[in-house]
Amino acid sequence: MFQYAASVEKWDVFEVTVSGRADGNPFVDYSIRGVFQSAQERVETDGFYDGDGIYRVRFMPSIEGDYTFRVFGSFSDEEYTGNFTVTPASANNHGPVRVANTFHFAYEDGTPYYPVGTTCYVWTHQPQELQEKTLEELSKGYFNKIRFCVFPKHYDYNFRDPITFPYEGTPCDNSGLNRDNFGTYLPSNPENKWDFKRFNPEHFRLFENRIRDLRDMGIEADLIIMHPYDRWGFSEMDAESDDLYWNYVIARFAAYRNVWWSLANEFEFVRKKTMADWERYAHILCKKDPYHHLRSIHNAFNFYDYNKPWITHACIQLQDKKPLELLPDWREMYRKPIVVDEMRYEGNIEHGWGNITAEEMVRRFWEVTLMGAYGGHGETYMHPDNILWWSHGGELHGESGPRLKFLQQILNESPYIGLDPCGEYLTAASKVAFAPNTYRLLYFGYTRPSYKRFYYDDEHDYQVEVIDTWNMTIENRGIFRGRFDIDLPSRQYMAIRIKMVD
Amino acid sequence: MFQYAASVEKWDVFEVTVSGRADGNPFVDYSIRGVFQSAQERVETDGFYDGDGIYRVRFMPSIEGDYTFRVFGSFSDEEYTGNFTVTPASANNHGPVRVANTFHFAYEDGTPYYPVGTTCYVWTHQPQELQEKTLEELSKGYFNKIRFCVFPKHYDYNFRDPITFPYEGTPCDNSGLNRDNFGTYLPSNPENKWDFKRFNPEHFRLFENRIRDLRDMGIEADLIIMHPYDRWGFSEMDAESDDLYWNYVIARFAAYRNVWWSLANEFEFVRKKTMADWERYAHILCKKDPYHHLRSIHNAFNFYDYNKPWITHACIQLQDKKPLELLPDWREMYRKPIVVDEMRYEGNIEHGWGNITAEEMVRRFWEVTLMGAYGGHGETYMHPDNILWWSHGGELHGESGPRLKFLQQILNESPYIGLDPCGEYLTAASKVAFAPNTYRLLYFGYTRPSYKRFYYDDEHDYQVEVIDTWNMTIENRGIFRGRFDIDLPSRQYMAIRIKMVD
Repeated sequence: MFQYAASVEKWDVFEVTVSGRADGNPFVDYSIRGVFQSAQERVETDGFYDGDGIYRVRFMPSIEGDYTFRVFGSFSDEEYTGNFTVTPASANNHGPVRVANTFHFAYEDGTPYYPVGTTCYVWTHQPQELQEKTLEELSKGYFNKIRFCVFPKHYDYNFRDPITFPYEGTPCDNSGLNRDNFGTYLPSNPENKWDFKRFNPEHFRLFENRIRDLRDMGIEADLIIMHPYDRWGFSEMDAESDDLYWNYVIARFAAYRNVWWSLANEFEFVRKKTMADWERYAHILCKKDPYHHLRSIHNAFNFYDYNKPWITHACIQLQDKKPLELLPDWREMYRKPIVVDEMRYEGNIEHGWGNITAEEMVRRFWEVTLMGAYGGHGETYMHPDNILWWSHGGELHGESGPRLKFLQQILNESPYIGLDPCGEYLTAASKVAFAPNTYRLLYFGYTRPSYKRFYYDDEHDYQVEVIDTWNMTIENRGIFRGRFDIDLPSRQYMAIRIKMVD
Repeated sequence: MFQYAASVEKWDVFEVTVSGRADGNPFVDYSIRGVFQSAQERVETDGFYDGDGIYRVRFMPSIEGDYTFRVFGSFSDEEYTGNFTVTPASANNHGPVRVANTFHFAYEDGTPYYPVGTTCYVWTHQPQELQEKTLEELSKGYFNKIRFCVFPKHYDYNFRDPITFPYEGTPCDNSGLNRDNFGTYLPSNPENKWDFKRFNPEHFRLFENRIRDLRDMGIEADLIIMHPYDRWGFSEMDAESDDLYWNYVIARFAAYRNVWWSLANEFEFVRKKTMADWERYAHILCKKDPYHHLRSIHNAFNFYDYNKPWITHACIQLQDKKPLELLPDWREMYRKPIVVDEMRYEGNIEHGWGNITAEEMVRRFWEVTLMGAYGGHGETYMHPDNILWWSHGGELHGESGPRLKFLQQILNESPYIGLDPCGEYLTAASKVAFAPNTYRLLYFGYTRPSYKRFYYDDEHDYQVEVIDTWNMTIENRGIFRGRFDIDLPSRQYMAIRIKMVD
């Protein structure tokens, strides 16, 4: 017995559901795989066991037209075959995001994608009402990417158990955990009783529902597959269990077009893992993800070697010794897109990484943008019930959101895929000009000139707009030629956009 | 005929004035030198020609007691001898500033000196009324060091001729110079007619009057001997003229206890000079300044090698690629005091280095302080008559001054000579503790926690004060022991001072 749909739109999930054996431990005792084929595409991929005797094989088609499939389960000699049609992508479906123009991103259909991401580490592990609130907040369009974890998280302000666990078993007692017991990483607790060979399908089902919700909202799901904020031992499993986990995660999630892979958050803090482990996971990922979704790994203090060929883009946390000002060096060093996913968070908790102002959060986004890179948002305001966006989602309490939506608007009005810095004006302002003379975006950040002098040439007209990035206004100052001065309000956070008039 | 005083206080200027020959060119045709001796000190030093047949030899005694002197002029066979008494230093005279505790400064009498400097490049070249205004402003005590140039300056907002020139001759025409002719460095103009072998003593006399005024106000005079902002050819003289200039400057100014030597401002921009030239000037300085006043040289983009043994402290201008965050590396690299004399200026001119807010100016001072280093102030507000503090002095229009005086107060209340950073709290705040447990200063900068948790030990009491560095308040929060939380106002620019109670 098996099921599938007669048609699917390009870059959506086509799934074959097969009833098979449920005896023993189907997660390791049996396997399932599928081959999906059209005149122009052939994908062979693993499926996974979803509990209750149900196996699934998922496929994301990249081409329109007629397909056939053949699915094989090790639990049976039967071959499950069929055919289906891949229809054109609907209006808001642009395919997975790829690297474009060396330092930038575009959807597979060529539409530029300018990441303006946020972080809600374990929003999918919260009660459903809170998850719904998060989605409502996300629907405001402040962000087009969100980073979150498959595993639950143990950390400051975050001691409650998740709604589901990824494995069968029972967790250690969490009563009595509070700020005084804070630790990023609690050593393996013998109270934890898990069977690392038996996944809890409910955990993954709920999780992928949210991947789908995000996809339908046009939001990329930057999945953090491993992390160190752990009291359950999920960061200390043996290699065999790790690899089983990686294969399971890839088989379940890879067919969602909006998935990005982040191997880890703060990889160096996952203390039991060696560099060889990370490279092994990367190897599994490269081999098993047929769609080559974007891949990176996130640092605490030390950068992973982003020159590794499997890494599609650098995913960076700033540190005192790794300040934003050095970003141009990283860009040249890696020649890949740079996403500064952690630039400190808007909020007022006690940690220095979680108490900057909204103004500073937005400034950092503009600075990275003008350096030809991308930023990441997070919010950490104290909350009476310890519901902090950065960890739990819920409601945003800060002021950066609408400004980041405004930044997206400015980016989407750019004439090319991505903005690249050029050397004009040096310290006066970071400056962007993709094509000399035709388009320029200047940003003044925390500096606040009373005017700015320009002189490009005597032959062309230039249209000048003054942008207040905080108050979200765009003021047309008219057309200029030759040498000209643009008055500015001696206020911080101003930008100027200059377009050559044809 | 010669003159001298019967007594002088320690670290003041003792001067022997001699009438000699005025024929030919006394600046090069004749020389004068003196030997000053007591039971414990012997200084041999060059004098200089001051015009009108007057020669002077100056001496700064470092020891109290009875001295004799012998002065020799090449213009005569006569030997000028005499004796004088060195009396104790008066209350506000602590001697010259020296390096102390590796990274810090103290006056020669051991009093800690925490530089909080400003920059007024050519305030002594302005009309006397404006100079008086500058002194009035300086008398408010916002700064205890000021950087300024011996040579006049040509630069944006600064095209007027100085009140005097350092040489006999006539300058090129300055009419018609304005923003459109801006250039840091104008190539030698044939209109300039100077005799680089004949100083204008009036120029140096007026200049040293101001060194003396500053000394009497307790302000260090950080003299910039060479610089590139030139339309007169003073930055393009030949080696012989350069060396004559250096010898003259040293002979005139070295006996003032408040003198610091800055070989150049933005040394790389003085294009006609090679590294060998700078090292030669340094050699002259080390040989001819008997008092070994502090010596440094200031960068544009590239640091001079501050490891050079003649350099007593690094004098640094920040750049995008040389941000404040890297200061701890420089400190370790050079193992000398770090003075970040240019951290951008409070103001609103068009240049990115001259339009930060007062808040940001003050924040940068606190940041460098908490990194165990020292900052520099400058102010560049647009002015209807182009009188900008950074260049001309005059009145301050900004808001950082009183806050920098407040910072000096905090520094002067430190228990040791200098504050050194320690690793506690990492990104949360730079932190200072000279002696573990006994004294701590934390600064939160642009971060704004709602509280901060502390736990040092269970045995000692700690007195906690919350400092608002912007509003200049110090609030005593009482005595704490063990684990304790300190509430903070979720506002930027706060600091905490913690002292162990004996």
